[in-house]
Amino acid sequence: MKVRLTSIHHFAAAHRLHNDARDAEWNRRVFDKCNNDHGHGHTYGLEVTVEGAIDPETGYLMDFKELKRVVEDRIVRHVERRHLNFDVDFLEGINPTAENIAVAFWRRLEGALPRAVLRRITLHETQKNSVVFEG
Amino acid sequence: MKVRLTSIHHFAAAHRLHNDARDAEWNRRVFDKCNNDHGHGHTYGLEVTVEGAIDPETGYLMDFKELKRVVEDRIVRHVERRHLNFDVDFLEGINPTAENIAVAFWRRLEGALPRAVLRRITLHETQKNSVVFEG
Amino acid sequence: MKVRLTSIHHFAAAHRLHNDARDAEWNRRVFDKCNNDHGHGHTYGLEVTVEGAIDPETGYLMDFKELKRVVEDRIVRHVERRHLNFDVDFLEGINPTAENIAVAFWRRLEGALPRAVLRRITLHETQKNSVVFEG
Amino acid sequence: MKVRLTSIHHFAAAHRLHNDARDAEWNRRVFDKCNNDHGHGHTYGLEVTVEGAIDPETGYLMDFKELKRVVEDRIVRHVERRHLNFDVDFLEGINPTAENIAVAFWRRLEGALPRAVLRRITLHETQKNSVVFEG
Amino acid sequence: MKVRLTSIHHFAAAHRLHNDARDAEWNRRVFDKCNNDHGHGHTYGLEVTVEGAIDPETGYLMDFKELKRVVEDRIVRHVERRHLNFDVDFLEGINPTAENIAVAFWRRLEGALPRAVLRRITLHETQKNSVVFEG
Amino acid sequence: MKVRLTSIHHFAAAHRLHNDARDAEWNRRVFDKCNNDHGHGHTYGLEVTVEGAIDPETGYLMDFKELKRVVEDRIVRHVERRHLNFDVDFLEGINPTAENIAVAFWRRLEGALPRAVLRRITLHETQKNSVVFEG
Repeated sequence: MKVRLTSIHHFAAAHRLHNDARDAEWNRRVFDKCNNDHGHGHTYGLEVTVEGAIDPETGYLMDFKELKRVVEDRIVRHVERRHLNFDVDFLEGINPTAENIAVAFWRRLEGALPRAVLRRITLHETQKNSVVFEG
Repeated sequence: MKVRLTSIHHFAAAHRLHNDARDAEWNRRVFDKCNNDHGHGHTYGLEVTVEGAIDPETGYLMDFKELKRVVEDRIVRHVERRHLNFDVDFLEGINPTAENIAVAFWRRLEGALPRAVLRRITLHETQKNSVVFEG
Repeated sequence: MKVRLTSIHHFAAAHRLHNDARDAEWNRRVFDKCNNDHGHGHTYGLEVTVEGAIDPETGYLMDFKELKRVVEDRIVRHVERRHLNFDVDFLEGINPTAENIAVAFWRRLEGALPRAVLRRITLHETQKNSVVFEG
Repeated sequence: MKVRLTSIHHFAAAHRLHNDARDAEWNRRVFDKCNNDHGHGHTYGLEVTVEGAIDPETGYLMDFKELKRVVEDRIVRHVERRHLNFDVDFLEGINPTAENIAVAFWRRLEGALPRAVLRRITLHETQKNSVVFEG
Repeated sequence: MKVRLTSIHHFAAAHRLHNDARDAEWNRRVFDKCNNDHGHGHTYGLEVTVEGAIDPETGYLMDFKELKRVVEDRIVRHVERRHLNFDVDFLEGINPTAENIAVAFWRRLEGALPRAVLRRITLHETQKNSVVFEG
Repeated sequence: MKVRLTSIHHFAAAHRLHNDARDAEWNRRVFDKCNNDHGHGHTYGLEVTVEGAIDPETGYLMDFKELKRVVEDRIVRHVERRHLNFDVDFLEGINPTAENIAVAFWRRLEGALPRAVLRRITLHETQKNSVVFEG
């Protein structure tokens, strides 16, 4: 009896798109307004999906509270009310596009969920844009 | 031309998490506030996804009205404004975690949809938690 | 410079509509499925609106964190994962219709917000039904 | 590093379900209110999902702006504020069920996205009904 | 103890903006794409707000089921899956802008709600546009 | 026939809460994480509500397109993908709390809407927090 659980989280963060290996003109042309000097921000939506068998004793794949605790501890408390280019250890040296953030989040969670297998990270950058990474 | 249709439903129900084979202390430790004596409740969101070929004559996989009729008849009218631990025949003896409810709903629908194959049950327990069962 | 702040909260609770002063037949006729013996439940949405002047030093009417702390402390922790007919001191003896709950919540908050005046309680019972109480 | 991007769009359109090869009685019986002479309408929600590798230089699969530009140019500007039975070249001769529209949209986008592979079209006809086509 | 109840409804309809007293050129200039010959459509959202005292015996201002029944009977069944320019008696001769529809709905409901006073009609034409009429 | 129209907009911006007249310790204590050096961000939701009479010739209070054009021109294009502490002329010297932003937006719009009276600015900072200013 395999099921998947999804836990939804939100965080408020700033970011600026920039490739340090390229010059200012290239960055401005490629990233446009997302390259503004001081950055901008989003209320990001994060969905974490895990998969596994239902434990017949509890009826749980895993307790949602436990899943939420891990996501908060490994990810959300590090990015909530932060600037993703400056304040987050595990994003150091990463150009914080939605794609790159999703991959970085995957790496933070992989292996941190003892009872379940990580299956999908969905990151909503706006209400109209989202990215999915499945490892 | 295979497509998938998803129909969304809501129902308001109470439940209490409890494993009758274990003692009160175990249940309290494992299920915490979800084990409170009188239960609590949710506005559950239910998404039913079916798959099949488009009928060239109607342009339908199946009429959404027919899909909705089956889901209402087999599931929603049995759980709407009910306590899932006491009032629902097809949940008798089942600890009503989101995982177990999703599996029970699958069994209620499997085979009841003549023109389409059941592919997925998604049950939203809160706005932050959901479970998917695909058979 | 008067503004209003609204803070949104959710809680998962069970309730049963019943007037203890009337007999079973009256209750069944008036409350129908909402009178089922074991109750049912909702993911309630609660919006608390306060009004006051912007403090020129902070730029706040009041810190949203402080507003949320008061609402959680006075209301949400008492009703989250509870049965409103049995488990909540300040609802004792009250038939928990949306209307009556909204009034009871108002009384819990009135006077508990030192920097702001309580203006409105909005309680969403389902995604289609809500009640507003303004004192 | 394969990811999927989803871009969400809305458009306001009218449609009438009708199979020109069948008589009025058949159409009325099969399509019921959706066969009313002058049609009805929806605020359709359209989700376009593409897949591909992250470009290490930009951190993008593709720029969301570019994805949106293509979807607007190939689809949305042709259907926004239109009647799908009369006003849209690429729907001519098609009975505009959600299923058929999704397939027609796929054909408009396939091959128009140079950096990414089209993976999924999701069309929300109402807030309760959606169809998915994956080619 | 005065409260307000709001009931939310949706309907799928087509409309075309047109002032029959003016010529085609004027209509095209003023209403632009909303003047297209065959019309377009929306999934309209309708919120009906009523006000009154809580009945101490029931704890209700009025039963939400009764409020919904009246709105469905007086409004929704007449506009659901219809073209507002052709199919609705009580909109005959009215240019169906959101503003005019809201006023027409008010007139359909005023006086039809025995226990409560109609206070507000909110009509959501899209997810970004709404109109409020309060009599 | 007075009605109110509401137009909804979104923008992605960064901000940092800081009172320049007070020292670092005060700012840290009062604004906590919202005082982080590089700021953070939100997908702000902005609702602009105007009031006026329905023009009998058009059936409009004013064309939603015109209302949207003014809000985009006066506000949204100045704050979209910007840092509110550095990049916005009309916010210079203002500590960008939700309260102060709402007041500043009011001043940008007041008098810019020839056919209607500005009635309300609602600014959603997160999905759980909003502020209303009515002049």
